[in-house]
Amino acid sequence: MTLPAGIETPAVLVDLDIAEANIRAAQAHCDAVGVRLRPHVKTHKLIALARAQLAAGAVGITCQKVSEAEVFVRAGFDDVLITYNLLGAEKLARLRELSLHARMAACADSATTVNGLSAAFASAPKPLSVLVECDTGGGRCGVQSPEAAAELAGLIARSPGLIFGGLMTYPAAGTHGRVEEFMTVARDRAIRAAGSCATITSGGTPAMRTFTGSKVVTEYRPGTYVYNDRSLIARGDARVEDCALRVAATVVSRPTADRAILDSGSKTLSSDLLGLTGYGMLPDFPGAMIAGLSEEHAVVDLSGAGKRPDVGEVVSVIPNHACVVTNLTDRVFLHRGMVAPAATAVDARGRVW
Amino acid sequence: MTLPAGIETPAVLVDLDIAEANIRAAQAHCDAVGVRLRPHVKTHKLIALARAQLAAGAVGITCQKVSEAEVFVRAGFDDVLITYNLLGAEKLARLRELSLHARMAACADSATTVNGLSAAFASAPKPLSVLVECDTGGGRCGVQSPEAAAELAGLIARSPGLIFGGLMTYPAAGTHGRVEEFMTVARDRAIRAAGSCATITSGGTPAMRTFTGSKVVTEYRPGTYVYNDRSLIARGDARVEDCALRVAATVVSRPTADRAILDSGSKTLSSDLLGLTGYGMLPDFPGAMIAGLSEEHAVVDLSGAGKRPDVGEVVSVIPNHACVVTNLTDRVFLHRGMVAPAATAVDARGRVW
Repeated sequence: MTLPAGIETPAVLVDLDIAEANIRAAQAHCDAVGVRLRPHVKTHKLIALARAQLAAGAVGITCQKVSEAEVFVRAGFDDVLITYNLLGAEKLARLRELSLHARMAACADSATTVNGLSAAFASAPKPLSVLVECDTGGGRCGVQSPEAAAELAGLIARSPGLIFGGLMTYPAAGTHGRVEEFMTVARDRAIRAAGSCATITSGGTPAMRTFTGSKVVTEYRPGTYVYNDRSLIARGDARVEDCALRVAATVVSRPTADRAILDSGSKTLSSDLLGLTGYGMLPDFPGAMIAGLSEEHAVVDLSGAGKRPDVGEVVSVIPNHACVVTNLTDRVFLHRGMVAPAATAVDARGRVW
Repeated sequence: MTLPAGIETPAVLVDLDIAEANIRAAQAHCDAVGVRLRPHVKTHKLIALARAQLAAGAVGITCQKVSEAEVFVRAGFDDVLITYNLLGAEKLARLRELSLHARMAACADSATTVNGLSAAFASAPKPLSVLVECDTGGGRCGVQSPEAAAELAGLIARSPGLIFGGLMTYPAAGTHGRVEEFMTVARDRAIRAAGSCATITSGGTPAMRTFTGSKVVTEYRPGTYVYNDRSLIARGDARVEDCALRVAATVVSRPTADRAILDSGSKTLSSDLLGLTGYGMLPDFPGAMIAGLSEEHAVVDLSGAGKRPDVGEVVSVIPNHACVVTNLTDRVFLHRGMVAPAATAVDARGRVW
């Protein structure tokens, strides 16, 4: 590929035409199956793309951390769900400050988290909406049963400064049946324990294509769909031409006939494998395999490749996992079909606390 | 562990007493075996620690990219080796600008790279020193034989704007014999082809402990030794108490008796495995295993652990690979035995182009 002048490699390129098409397609899907869309902005961490998501019909945004939410609330976003157990005096003070400027919601899966949130919000001007995180098979955070969800919902409803906002899960891909079952029982019990259960929010791009509607889920929170990546291609959830984010890398060495070295390593592509073999796809060089990464080098195995790139050539890489790539780079180049790329700061890069 | 007020998790902590002891020990080792030390600053990306390395006796610094070198040259560092094949008009123009302010050296393993460097420096006020990168078994960049090294050395010596500076390798760990053999032949042939071969530079913390001197290597370039990490503990190259860099993380969930969730995921610890099982060590919780990471969560398997942390507890994590952790965080907290931590910007974070 040929890069416009002024862009040095490695460079993270975002094709806005593709990203906007992905945003429209996900919104159309959620509209069609009857759930609200609350995109997770951790994928792009860009105010401009979050605004495009809202303009397309999203009801608000999802953030993973308080520091990330601060960037978006400062930019005027007024409806933010933080899908995280927030603990610690400093973090809770910042959350309380955010709640003066935006409609904030947070999550909890333990009484310890609920009690901390309540202590921080008991004297706040507005109560905080708190959803119970449910482990529907993802094996990460979350209460382990509908009964435990209802019990925590009751505690939230009784806690000063808090209102019970509903139930949240990040499901394992392809487990919609399990989500449906867990959430139906949990919702009915939570209504008995807490008086209401307004929102049932699920999410994830990997499960979105097969999510064809629900009798209980009211909201969906995908993130990666805005860019797509090699992991989603491998799952059959995206095509190469749906990948809005690419890394432009230069071939800096061809030490042997079967080996090329790129100037993008784990500090650009990350080491995320997501169950795949190899660390990225070279769509213009079929059969080429990124066999290994060090911090600043990618080692490409060309033994299975017909066409092979020369030293100095710039190649396009579709990373395994787009969400970690954007968090590694201070800037992305936004463009439309490689025309007029604009270096743009990644607004919430590194906001992980 | 107890964090001083004002530090939110996840936080990257650097104990300066330990880092300084590591710097002294590596310098003493290189002095004892009779090689110059040129530390790779990609590990810490901090001007303050690079200064400490020079003060201890290092002859200069190693950088991996031009953008990284720019940060250090601007801070006054005047002897910088970039161990990389540099290609592309913009990058070469920046390298030429750097060479007006510091003694710069770069590397090449192909005529394409040499010709590009020569075109950029033919009209420069001072020639650029160029070393030939040799693949002594690491399987990354580098010419494949001593004969090819000598041939490229001759080309460099004949190229306008360049002087031949010597030979560079990043060896696979434990291959000192192979390095010795390759470099001895390459040096003798390079002297015949280019008239001299001033520097033979090798490197890497993993190979440093077993590097007990050489008849040919004149310079050594370790990076990770300043911090150490779990990968070096696993290799027997460092002890827990030699690890200057730790990640402080909060237990945000204990969904089951055998599972804890930390607030530090792949956006803090990185997914680097370096051949290990698990994504980090919890030195205060023997038997606990970081079994998986998502972007903002670490899933800890406690089934083999006696002592187990509670929700809200702050734990200390030794990451698998320190060099990628510092590149993920905008700031580290420098301290001495957890006293008076000072938030410090990671000067060259994200400087990968």
